[in-house]
Amino acid sequence: MAPSSARVVVKVDLKKKPWQQNQPLHNRWHPEIQPVAEVKAGEFFRVEMVDWTGGAVKDDGSSDDIKTIDLSTVHYLSGPIRVVDEDGVAAKPGDLLAVEICNLGPLPGDEWGFTASFDRENGGGFLTDHFPCATKAIWYFEGIYAFSPQIPGVRFPGLTHPGIIGTAPSMELLRIWNERERKLEETGFNTLSLCEVVHQRPLANLPTSKGCLLGNIEEGAPEWERIAKEAARTIPGRENGGNCDIKNLSRGSKIYLPVFVEGANLSTGDMHFSQGDGEISFCGAIEMSGFLELKCEIIRNGMQEYLTPMGPTTLHVNPIFEIGPMEPRFSEWLVFEGISVDESGRQHYLDATVAYKRAVLNAIDYLFKFGYSKEQVYLLLSCCPCEGRISGIVDSPNAVATLAIPTAIFDQDIRPKTQKVPVGPRLVRKPDVLKSTYDGMLPITKNPSSSS
Amino acid sequence: MAPSSARVVVKVDLKKKPWQQNQPLHNRWHPEIQPVAEVKAGEFFRVEMVDWTGGAVKDDGSSDDIKTIDLSTVHYLSGPIRVVDEDGVAAKPGDLLAVEICNLGPLPGDEWGFTASFDRENGGGFLTDHFPCATKAIWYFEGIYAFSPQIPGVRFPGLTHPGIIGTAPSMELLRIWNERERKLEETGFNTLSLCEVVHQRPLANLPTSKGCLLGNIEEGAPEWERIAKEAARTIPGRENGGNCDIKNLSRGSKIYLPVFVEGANLSTGDMHFSQGDGEISFCGAIEMSGFLELKCEIIRNGMQEYLTPMGPTTLHVNPIFEIGPMEPRFSEWLVFEGISVDESGRQHYLDATVAYKRAVLNAIDYLFKFGYSKEQVYLLLSCCPCEGRISGIVDSPNAVATLAIPTAIFDQDIRPKTQKVPVGPRLVRKPDVLKSTYDGMLPITKNPSSSS
Amino acid sequence: MAPSSARVVVKVDLKKKPWQQNQPLHNRWHPEIQPVAEVKAGEFFRVEMVDWTGGAVKDDGSSDDIKTIDLSTVHYLSGPIRVVDEDGVAAKPGDLLAVEICNLGPLPGDEWGFTASFDRENGGGFLTDHFPCATKAIWYFEGIYAFSPQIPGVRFPGLTHPGIIGTAPSMELLRIWNERERKLEETGFNTLSLCEVVHQRPLANLPTSKGCLLGNIEEGAPEWERIAKEAARTIPGRENGGNCDIKNLSRGSKIYLPVFVEGANLSTGDMHFSQGDGEISFCGAIEMSGFLELKCEIIRNGMQEYLTPMGPTTLHVNPIFEIGPMEPRFSEWLVFEGISVDESGRQHYLDATVAYKRAVLNAIDYLFKFGYSKEQVYLLLSCCPCEGRISGIVDSPNAVATLAIPTAIFDQDIRPKTQKVPVGPRLVRKPDVLKSTYDGMLPITKNPSSSS
Amino acid sequence: MAPSSARVVVKVDLKKKPWQQNQPLHNRWHPEIQPVAEVKAGEFFRVEMVDWTGGAVKDDGSSDDIKTIDLSTVHYLSGPIRVVDEDGVAAKPGDLLAVEICNLGPLPGDEWGFTASFDRENGGGFLTDHFPCATKAIWYFEGIYAFSPQIPGVRFPGLTHPGIIGTAPSMELLRIWNERERKLEETGFNTLSLCEVVHQRPLANLPTSKGCLLGNIEEGAPEWERIAKEAARTIPGRENGGNCDIKNLSRGSKIYLPVFVEGANLSTGDMHFSQGDGEISFCGAIEMSGFLELKCEIIRNGMQEYLTPMGPTTLHVNPIFEIGPMEPRFSEWLVFEGISVDESGRQHYLDATVAYKRAVLNAIDYLFKFGYSKEQVYLLLSCCPCEGRISGIVDSPNAVATLAIPTAIFDQDIRPKTQKVPVGPRLVRKPDVLKSTYDGMLPITKNPSSSS
Repeated sequence: MAPSSARVVVKVDLKKKPWQQNQPLHNRWHPEIQPVAEVKAGEFFRVEMVDWTGGAVKDDGSSDDIKTIDLSTVHYLSGPIRVVDEDGVAAKPGDLLAVEICNLGPLPGDEWGFTASFDRENGGGFLTDHFPCATKAIWYFEGIYAFSPQIPGVRFPGLTHPGIIGTAPSMELLRIWNERERKLEETGFNTLSLCEVVHQRPLANLPTSKGCLLGNIEEGAPEWERIAKEAARTIPGRENGGNCDIKNLSRGSKIYLPVFVEGANLSTGDMHFSQGDGEISFCGAIEMSGFLELKCEIIRNGMQEYLTPMGPTTLHVNPIFEIGPMEPRFSEWLVFEGISVDESGRQHYLDATVAYKRAVLNAIDYLFKFGYSKEQVYLLLSCCPCEGRISGIVDSPNAVATLAIPTAIFDQDIRPKTQKVPVGPRLVRKPDVLKSTYDGMLPITKNPSSSS
Repeated sequence: MAPSSARVVVKVDLKKKPWQQNQPLHNRWHPEIQPVAEVKAGEFFRVEMVDWTGGAVKDDGSSDDIKTIDLSTVHYLSGPIRVVDEDGVAAKPGDLLAVEICNLGPLPGDEWGFTASFDRENGGGFLTDHFPCATKAIWYFEGIYAFSPQIPGVRFPGLTHPGIIGTAPSMELLRIWNERERKLEETGFNTLSLCEVVHQRPLANLPTSKGCLLGNIEEGAPEWERIAKEAARTIPGRENGGNCDIKNLSRGSKIYLPVFVEGANLSTGDMHFSQGDGEISFCGAIEMSGFLELKCEIIRNGMQEYLTPMGPTTLHVNPIFEIGPMEPRFSEWLVFEGISVDESGRQHYLDATVAYKRAVLNAIDYLFKFGYSKEQVYLLLSCCPCEGRISGIVDSPNAVATLAIPTAIFDQDIRPKTQKVPVGPRLVRKPDVLKSTYDGMLPITKNPSSSS
Repeated sequence: MAPSSARVVVKVDLKKKPWQQNQPLHNRWHPEIQPVAEVKAGEFFRVEMVDWTGGAVKDDGSSDDIKTIDLSTVHYLSGPIRVVDEDGVAAKPGDLLAVEICNLGPLPGDEWGFTASFDRENGGGFLTDHFPCATKAIWYFEGIYAFSPQIPGVRFPGLTHPGIIGTAPSMELLRIWNERERKLEETGFNTLSLCEVVHQRPLANLPTSKGCLLGNIEEGAPEWERIAKEAARTIPGRENGGNCDIKNLSRGSKIYLPVFVEGANLSTGDMHFSQGDGEISFCGAIEMSGFLELKCEIIRNGMQEYLTPMGPTTLHVNPIFEIGPMEPRFSEWLVFEGISVDESGRQHYLDATVAYKRAVLNAIDYLFKFGYSKEQVYLLLSCCPCEGRISGIVDSPNAVATLAIPTAIFDQDIRPKTQKVPVGPRLVRKPDVLKSTYDGMLPITKNPSSSS
Repeated sequence: MAPSSARVVVKVDLKKKPWQQNQPLHNRWHPEIQPVAEVKAGEFFRVEMVDWTGGAVKDDGSSDDIKTIDLSTVHYLSGPIRVVDEDGVAAKPGDLLAVEICNLGPLPGDEWGFTASFDRENGGGFLTDHFPCATKAIWYFEGIYAFSPQIPGVRFPGLTHPGIIGTAPSMELLRIWNERERKLEETGFNTLSLCEVVHQRPLANLPTSKGCLLGNIEEGAPEWERIAKEAARTIPGRENGGNCDIKNLSRGSKIYLPVFVEGANLSTGDMHFSQGDGEISFCGAIEMSGFLELKCEIIRNGMQEYLTPMGPTTLHVNPIFEIGPMEPRFSEWLVFEGISVDESGRQHYLDATVAYKRAVLNAIDYLFKFGYSKEQVYLLLSCCPCEGRISGIVDSPNAVATLAIPTAIFDQDIRPKTQKVPVGPRLVRKPDVLKSTYDGMLPITKNPSSSS
């Protein structure tokens, strides 16, 4: 009886560009992108993936690559993987695909990652109106731990997870996506109130043939142009899972994905060594290449059995998942509150997004007093295992959101002290993040009460 | 050396009405409400409180009291408590008040609570468009555990906490509140998009002399009318803490509250035996009378030292807190995702509130398949120790919110099974919640895909 | 429907002596001690108890009471409680009694406790050869926390539990106990090797009419003398549960006790606010009066169904239990190892007791370097929530035991530092424990390598 | 700036025998075994290791290899590794070596392990008198999980750790070890009482040139014979750490090892995918080959600074360690108690080893009722993440030990049920462990009360 490792079904070569890989990658969702591999239910298999930018971001001492990044090309995904049952019969629309994450991690020899915030005119982020410059921090890994030369004084164990895992949409689902997102883009006015607080643009990421990579369908092929214009961008999470950026999809977790096309066509990518709830700086996780070791089961007719659509069609569903037993354990947390009043003092109605923005801003300014630059904290809270909660959502007019930070990740005690009142920065943390200039003309949101 | 229990500084008599208590209660925030007690920094003291409705809701087999409740009278708070340092010098504006929750619980002899959803025309709740009727469930306590005759098949340990803990606002802060909330009420239009999804009304709870209780200031006193018209309602959490409804403010937690008036004037109330993140049904915690055992410290000048205002004035701050070591421990969670697409299929822009609504709806319909009525689940998810997270807030256009439910609270295994596919309700859970008719004319949101 | 608190089935009056209570207490195990109360399966009830010494130890600034304590009178237990099923039929021998601890705590108004080590000639303790003097520390409670004026610099949440919970033995079981313990006492020689390391005496605590309290059977009654000479002491844990001193029998735990007599006759006492694994100083927990809130179920024929006797008769069984969900949570532990080599350097064979002694001694001398006296640490490790593990038990000749201490209970960082090497005591912790003289003639074990 | 993986300082080739490796292995402790590698303080490095038997045990469907194993050859260790500070100056006797385990796991391509119990005449185990036959189970790994064809119905995440990590002893320390262990071997009589309960033999594992492997010192070299006769066996844990078999030395833990020779000469081996406290069947962990990723710091003069010798010389110390943040998390445990009364009903004095034996026997017979064979449970409790605690060590004459088993590792609910009483084995778990005949003449301990 020969003991066996996971069968490698997708292999990547980090020395090659994303479009040069032996097994082609893809950066769009479309039902016509053909599987690059097949696995059986119950089989233990391994999928490798490039980082979400396909190697565009370097450990080079500069944030220029972030500033000028072409976001039409992300995210580079591995797959699709066709899943069949033990008799070789493919998963069918209406089934649920149970995917267990048995293990995951960085690719051997590539144990590093990056966290960044984009330029306000090229991607932005949750706080781009406060931090319009492109910034970058590099993280190195020592086993379970990550540390960054640009954010000294913190070190933490990663809650590693794939930012993206999802099944292929059917044409019908794809049309639903494109239609509703286009409508949002066109009628931005109706979302005016939130747009005045969250300045990340565009409102939606619509299909574009620019930067498009479609797996086996090569540019120039007859159907390429059509598919490229139909295929959904990978930026948002949707009914098929996709870019959910849920930090708890780590070792031992189990995801139940709806199946929309024959074979399920599972794709995955955007590996994160660690991420905080919200992934606030947008390129906010510790982004890296990596591998997943997976096991799939097919629950026949599971969508009807377990999911109830929430919308006009039976396709308006969402995945569910179970959390695994191997998350890093922290017992002490410092928590920041935010309410749905924005920086100008304006009241919003039960808006959890606004409340969370204020909670994050509160945390940044608090940690700034301990010697970190605000940019350091912005990136840190994007990628460390902090928790963002919707605490109260019914007490009109204020939603209350909280951001909980594990105190053990710092090399100093960041809790308020009742005994003594030191003044000013405790420790100045140098060097700072890598930073580019912001050359745009948009106004920067200044907290009127902040001294810096 | 005589060992000493906590000194009781506020005592309530549950046989009396809220306005008949020896130490007067109050249900508004105003700097002129005088302290009913004084404590020293470092002193260990006890505060008792009535339930938030002051006994208006009964264990009587009917939800009529919920349907007809007068919400102008809530929440009945204990305090204010003036805090002085060990030399007798009062806390001052600009200080931070560190409040440690050493213990808390129901009042002896009154070990029960209620969870309810209000009628859509009288309070509503996060899902009031789906559940317009007033409903009620009674919970009994067996030590750390709660169970309900109306929601059979679940039993869970409480993460007990005060829904409200806060300091008195200064007149300046009070004016800021009233102005911004009035403005919201007046210009509802700007928040139109979210208002089309979240139907709880009113938009804001503005000052009203109706139902007003002002502590030592008795109705008829010369200043009563003025103060009643100025005093802020206690519904929303704000800069002073207040009705934050943060479920983790439990045993051993420590809250750092900004001080706005001399003496800090700490008030607390709205004890919850247990609550889920969001407290979704509005009267969503297990509401009860109770006691707190507290210790306070004064951090002189702590607001400047630790907090950075986030808004036009130095008063635009929020409390911070540390989580305690005695939370109930669960290791297995089933998690539901929601994205910012509403039930009509309409796309919203990075709206965490909409995403959380969808996550909750997904969870309700899932558990419905296990034999619970949807009303049972709505109330259960309001009060059980479930966690609501903002998972992704940057992947335009979808915010991703998650709702994690501890599986150990159920007497059946609620996880999806890969082995077998049972059909239909597993166990019908009878009896159901207490329920009133909805007599209003507003349309009920029907999920177009739901069969029930 | 009237909400109801737990029914009080045993009430104690702390102003009275143990032998003066309205419901008589007992301090021996015997089947003829009659129940003082009856409960139904499923009923939620409350039992109060005096501290294990029945008030003999005072908060009086002296350890004299400890030095001269009469150990023939301990432990004062509440009960027996007869358990019947819902039809009124009593639990029967061969059943299992499932006892759920729904809640527990100190008695209101008596929120304090003590930890002590006995004089070597009067009780001793695990390290009595090192610490022959009677010592005492008083602990006060602030809700979930305990602190001691005699052990400054530590404060911790209690993992509160009853040291004793058990069912009454049958006459047959009682005879087995008395016979085997008498035999040990008589043939101490065979246990010579361990006796040279563990100096606590006597080897066994045999029945004695001295200090005997037998519940309803009053001294002078015809059967008193006979029963007093048969009745087992409460010091050791045995087949009926009894003085197991298992720190995890806290809120939410569930104990499955074998039933040996009709009605089960449940007794409980020896409440501990907190205890470390091993309870090393003997009077090592934070001893206090207290209450339990319980629920019982009868598993008919459960002994045969679930337990397998381990010994010559069907009575040689042990209880099993489930841990509850509300234990204090610590994530950082400093761990000390011990191997089965004693202080003289002598090798023992796979002896976990010797290994644990060395682990504890290592911990004491380590913390001594941080400014605590060794007596302070001895008492602290007896009562704080530290964990004692049998790590290796097969690697001849060394058993390996570990003692894990949660670092969060200290107000200083007690971990070794790789950066700097401070010399000598970090902080001297004053005052010290209360301490009596040792007037005996036995040699004190001196660690030959220790400077103090 | 090139990101860098851990530097591989010891590499093994699993296709070669232990004595054929490029970097020689060793299976004895001796100061003259020369380092095979050098690392700098702060450097991140990787050490590979063979399984403890060096490949002697196969995945071959038979337990013959276990029955006939030559235990004189174990454990094959990687190292020694010389540690120097950042200036190149070696660690010195008296320093402490802080070793952080940044990561660890099985060797890629060799993801399997074995758990076994030895024949009573050739190694035995904690319960060898009950289970005299050699048995074996093979485990396969799916990422963090292990499962065994021979023990169906269980699957658990590994708390992976090195069974052995230690520094080289000085000659003086070596002499202390040899002398005290020889003395034990010669005067077995004094340990008679425990020897009548624990039947594993020999009492001690004394130096022998049989099977000896000494790193760079090849057999035939002039000093080989002398060193082979002096060098300590690796079976027991001792002052240098060594075979402590502490299951919590996993990812993120930090071990503080005393330094006895220049360079510290760190060796490690005996990787365990998982192990229960006690490792009861002796070959009781899931034994495998593997890798460690480490970082070392030197704390100059740290032995004096932090450790206090416990014995006649300054060398009588033990390592200390901190637990890491990435242990698998379980919230529900079923716990078995044992007291120091042996299977014959004989009373022992505060003997934690006897108490733990009884707790383990209780657990085995309990799980037997759920359809597992006793041999399956014996191996399972050796290797699953169960916890063995010394709960009470002062209540003469009974020590109380507990064994806590996480219920989530089973595919059935193993808790006692209060509702119904099923009879007999719930599920028969087939196939069983691989098993050899016991051909010896020693009597098997039969629990007189057991039916099987």
